[in-house]
Amino acid sequence: MSIPAIASTQNDALATLLDNAINNKTKPLGSLGMLETVAKQIGLIQRTREIVLEKPAILVFAADHGVVAEGVSAYPQDVTWQMVENFLARGAAINVFAQQNGCALHIIDAGVNHDFGPRTGLTDRKLTRGTHNFAQQPAMSADTCATALAAGMALVAELDGNVVGFGEMGIGNTTAAAALMHKLTGIPVAQCVGAGTGLSAEGISHKQRVIEAAVALHASATEPLDILATFGGLEIAMMAGAMLKAAERRMVLLIDGFIVTSALLVAARLQPAILDYCVFSHCSDESGHKKMLDHLGARPLLQLNLRLGEGTGCALTLPLLHSAVNFLNQMATFESAQVSEKSE
Amino acid sequence: MSIPAIASTQNDALATLLDNAINNKTKPLGSLGMLETVAKQIGLIQRTREIVLEKPAILVFAADHGVVAEGVSAYPQDVTWQMVENFLARGAAINVFAQQNGCALHIIDAGVNHDFGPRTGLTDRKLTRGTHNFAQQPAMSADTCATALAAGMALVAELDGNVVGFGEMGIGNTTAAAALMHKLTGIPVAQCVGAGTGLSAEGISHKQRVIEAAVALHASATEPLDILATFGGLEIAMMAGAMLKAAERRMVLLIDGFIVTSALLVAARLQPAILDYCVFSHCSDESGHKKMLDHLGARPLLQLNLRLGEGTGCALTLPLLHSAVNFLNQMATFESAQVSEKSE
Repeated sequence: MSIPAIASTQNDALATLLDNAINNKTKPLGSLGMLETVAKQIGLIQRTREIVLEKPAILVFAADHGVVAEGVSAYPQDVTWQMVENFLARGAAINVFAQQNGCALHIIDAGVNHDFGPRTGLTDRKLTRGTHNFAQQPAMSADTCATALAAGMALVAELDGNVVGFGEMGIGNTTAAAALMHKLTGIPVAQCVGAGTGLSAEGISHKQRVIEAAVALHASATEPLDILATFGGLEIAMMAGAMLKAAERRMVLLIDGFIVTSALLVAARLQPAILDYCVFSHCSDESGHKKMLDHLGARPLLQLNLRLGEGTGCALTLPLLHSAVNFLNQMATFESAQVSEKSE
Repeated sequence: MSIPAIASTQNDALATLLDNAINNKTKPLGSLGMLETVAKQIGLIQRTREIVLEKPAILVFAADHGVVAEGVSAYPQDVTWQMVENFLARGAAINVFAQQNGCALHIIDAGVNHDFGPRTGLTDRKLTRGTHNFAQQPAMSADTCATALAAGMALVAELDGNVVGFGEMGIGNTTAAAALMHKLTGIPVAQCVGAGTGLSAEGISHKQRVIEAAVALHASATEPLDILATFGGLEIAMMAGAMLKAAERRMVLLIDGFIVTSALLVAARLQPAILDYCVFSHCSDESGHKKMLDHLGARPLLQLNLRLGEGTGCALTLPLLHSAVNFLNQMATFESAQVSEKSE
């Protein structure tokens, strides 16, 4: 497994060309706000002023977490496989939003503790039936972690669109993500933990203590891939690999909430230029997410108090990406519409 | 002209039924955030759990403002009619976003200083060729203001959908809206004025002085309709009437930015229950808008630094309204999907 090299999208000549194209549209300068930023970003990613979104897809990675044995989740572990069944039956929020917004949905079993058998609509990349309990031992071996990263890369290598969103399902995975956040950013654990699917204040305190003890136990894990193997999940590792490959392919990466951003924290430590390719869909209500975004210097498009995961923020943001592309491609210019320009 | 009576949407039994329906969906409690709030609001507006969005439309009201003679805008007055031409040629931002999101667009000449002649796609409700300069005299007579309100009501009486967004075009209309805001909320003029289409700091100071002088000149205007006639625009008055009729018809009202919200300030003073029917699409970068929203206790869905007007915020928000309706109508319940519920 080798990590793809990711180039920055910086290109001053193209940036100027895009700025001019945006500023010549019939609107006050800068008045489309973040849509202008996104349109320019897409141009730099695609290396053209003729930007286009093709076949957007969301990859939802599911896996189980040994650390649920510590009582860190409000829901039982069976909910992971039950929700995968719900995805396959098209009954979950991500199904509804992906269908509404014309987005392909791929459900990937990265390591769920359940035997689904061969199933239409489910991509089987199960490595193990969930991770080990990181309160007692590393979540996975370095080999398993590398295999997960490679599996994620291979999945994205096969995609034929140019926009990919990331989602996840895994009871216990806010605990893994909070641990990764702490280790990769240095932010105190207390500011990394949140309610997840709905813990009480006492439950959150317990979750914090579990993470702090595990951090002390695994003090030797300091490099990004070590940290990922020690505290991560199979879905998080596979996502990190998928993200790296997507950026290498110069796709637009749509980043969802807390867990997805924790995977990006790993990927960005390995290849910082990956951030040039990321559109941050929303700021989650999971309490650590805003600090995670701030750490990355990221400004999300939506703040709707979502905290559902599954890639729902990505699916909900897709119409705004289309709007960014459409205004640049379809609006008249001051010249073509014969509209007077600013008089000052 | 009589103002429609607007009933509150409050209905405790239906609210409980909607809460239960939302909470039984396969997601952590409350995890769809503002989408849940909107879904419930639509249910209360439509008086049913079986919510549906039919034929969304955006009405864009255009008019000119005599106060531009005071040099309060960065663009010449001709831009009003030129932009109406741009709307008719489908070259403006609102055309692009309305088409993308499946929204009908109605362009209404409420009082543009230009002779368009009969034109396909333009609804002619021109009352005068713009308002008077409110720095010198009331913008319009009480009769003209009443006629504009009635014209707006009549337009909405003919709509056949159940969602209506409001947009506007009128060089100078942030000056009118800032004056209305000051008079209707008591917030100091300095906090009501902003850059509009792109004034310099000096231009903003001048705009503030123009409004302050006009407020002193017209100190006797204290009732909402007097204030509207004195400082408002024809497009603002017509919008206020359209909003009142839309709420009377129990439609969902999509509110755009600074100028549209100033029309709502008038309507809400006349019929406070109108706010039950309003979904606030976005918080504009026009500097007074956030304070206006706070005054109304409103929480907008988007914060994208938009400040374009035309109803663009409404068009961009429409997919989120569909998502709110779709999750309630299409998602599985814990029971139907056989997903375990919270274990605490």
